[in-house]
Amino acid sequence: MTTTLQTLGLSAAQVRSAKLEELISQDPTQFRVLTGDRPTGRLHLGHYFGTLHNRVRLQNLGVDLFVLIADYQVLTDRDIADNLAEHVEDLTLDYLAIGVDPARSTIFTHSAVPALNQLLLPFLSLVSVAELNRNPTVKDEIAHSRQAAVSGLMFTYPAHQAADILFCKANLVPVGQDQLPHLELTRTIARRFNDRYGTVFPQPDALLSNAPLLLGTDGTKMSKSRGNSIALAATADETARLLKGAKTDSERHIAYDPIARPEVASLLLLAALCQQQESGQQRTPERVAAEIGAAGAAALKKTVTESVNEYLAPIRARRAEYAKDRAQLHQILRTGNERAIDIANATLAQVRTAMKGAY
Amino acid sequence: MTTTLQTLGLSAAQVRSAKLEELISQDPTQFRVLTGDRPTGRLHLGHYFGTLHNRVRLQNLGVDLFVLIADYQVLTDRDIADNLAEHVEDLTLDYLAIGVDPARSTIFTHSAVPALNQLLLPFLSLVSVAELNRNPTVKDEIAHSRQAAVSGLMFTYPAHQAADILFCKANLVPVGQDQLPHLELTRTIARRFNDRYGTVFPQPDALLSNAPLLLGTDGTKMSKSRGNSIALAATADETARLLKGAKTDSERHIAYDPIARPEVASLLLLAALCQQQESGQQRTPERVAAEIGAAGAAALKKTVTESVNEYLAPIRARRAEYAKDRAQLHQILRTGNERAIDIANATLAQVRTAMKGAY
Repeated sequence: MTTTLQTLGLSAAQVRSAKLEELISQDPTQFRVLTGDRPTGRLHLGHYFGTLHNRVRLQNLGVDLFVLIADYQVLTDRDIADNLAEHVEDLTLDYLAIGVDPARSTIFTHSAVPALNQLLLPFLSLVSVAELNRNPTVKDEIAHSRQAAVSGLMFTYPAHQAADILFCKANLVPVGQDQLPHLELTRTIARRFNDRYGTVFPQPDALLSNAPLLLGTDGTKMSKSRGNSIALAATADETARLLKGAKTDSERHIAYDPIARPEVASLLLLAALCQQQESGQQRTPERVAAEIGAAGAAALKKTVTESVNEYLAPIRARRAEYAKDRAQLHQILRTGNERAIDIANATLAQVRTAMKGAY
Repeated sequence: MTTTLQTLGLSAAQVRSAKLEELISQDPTQFRVLTGDRPTGRLHLGHYFGTLHNRVRLQNLGVDLFVLIADYQVLTDRDIADNLAEHVEDLTLDYLAIGVDPARSTIFTHSAVPALNQLLLPFLSLVSVAELNRNPTVKDEIAHSRQAAVSGLMFTYPAHQAADILFCKANLVPVGQDQLPHLELTRTIARRFNDRYGTVFPQPDALLSNAPLLLGTDGTKMSKSRGNSIALAATADETARLLKGAKTDSERHIAYDPIARPEVASLLLLAALCQQQESGQQRTPERVAAEIGAAGAAALKKTVTESVNEYLAPIRARRAEYAKDRAQLHQILRTGNERAIDIANATLAQVRTAMKGAY
């Protein structure tokens, strides 16, 4: 049975996501979304157009949004997490700045919800080592004979992720293509648990994002550690300085050609995204390019800088406002944590009843 | 550097254990022992002379004894644990019957101490997949291409065991030879944690037992599931019936020869162990054999039955006494659980301080 959409060359996951978008617009209250980030630093425009913007969109449609600050995950890739508390605050400020509404949505830290970890033991009992080995990251490391480099925590990551998602019975998880295998294992764990002990968990659906890929100012992947990213919290001046130094090419005439001219194309895309968000009207990178034409890279950078700063201005203002009142910020986190704790405890109680005291 | 004991053919672990016994007799209060069992049924004489008796011995020397009822472990080898609550009660009754003193020692169930599981994430981050693969049980399964048969829970078992031991900072763990690799990984985890975050945990020592191997009444390994074991809680009549049907051999003259006549030897050993415990005097299976001589298997069985029933009589009486008062039994478990919870919370607080909020 091929649908029209599949005929158009979309994957099954993309077709499913399109259907989900329809269901969401019909009745958003049916959905609870779980998303999250590691508190490893300030969020940047790559994160924003990649995923953050989509979360706020879902929230504003009426979906129940949970945002997990995965503070335990600093264990997986650094020995000691310096200034973790500060990173958690920064991340929370970024969420509030972009429009996550603490009155409607739940921002919480993993470490504050110990009941969540209680799901690990039953979940680990429901997956095999063979299945854990299929995790692409783990596969890569082991294929390169670096088994010693894969920690037990990294290896069991899909079970931790299942606990992060299922503790609040989220039924929708926005993911990129590369995360589909992880989510599939969460679905498997939910299904096996339900089959064995009685239905407790939903099998969460993947909502594939059509996130555009933004390059950093040096033309490589945008990443905080490369110093090529524009943080949401950067000042207008910092943004201007970073974009002034952005890599372009020697062609004077500006055109949108992602294959031949990736750096210029990424800048055009960024301007178009910001202008579109700002104006609420359809803007394409081709259109932005046409407006610059022969004015060259300097004009392009000026346009991008103005678009970004204009678009981020209210976001930055909101961030500054929230940053003034640390007591309020802590109260927001506390409220989110309390809500997550209550939900985790309720789920855990159901799990224990279903398992008849076997856990 | 070889010691005299090593010259005598003892392994390093055995030499270390002999030294530990000396230290224990000098100052038992320096030691906290963690032991435990899965609540999979009533304990039998194999368990008793294999490990239980040694625990009570350590307790009576003045060592702080913790006995973990590993109720989560039913997840590792059966799909649904039927009558778990009853099994937990039976196990507790067995402990009390053999002389575990709830006023001095701590009997607790794993499921009652959620803080214990909070150690899993940091511990998993401190071991590699390569190290987890060295677990002999896992190695066996994977070598037989049964990777799909190894669950994530079984695979990560050494990390769970480390949490079970280290949550209460036990520094002594009685083990058999086959468990040495597991305990070594617990020591590694403790060492790595301390190196990385500052000293919180002891590196627990293995106390190797010299447990004699008792066969079941059919001449194979004593095991509840084979119906060849004498439960501590069995009646005198059941014991007599089981031993009457015990496998022996066709030689009339009774002699102690574990290689050529394993079934007869095991019965002689059982009688000697019971008589020795009962009388407090040195009794050897050779001596028991000499006393029976040409009287044959029937006489042997009579002697064994009498010795076992005589020795178990006070244990069974104590069991019956405790079994009468379920409220008291539950109170004993509750008190043990509360003590374990307090200790786990204190350890977890130390862990979190050491990790500076990274967990």
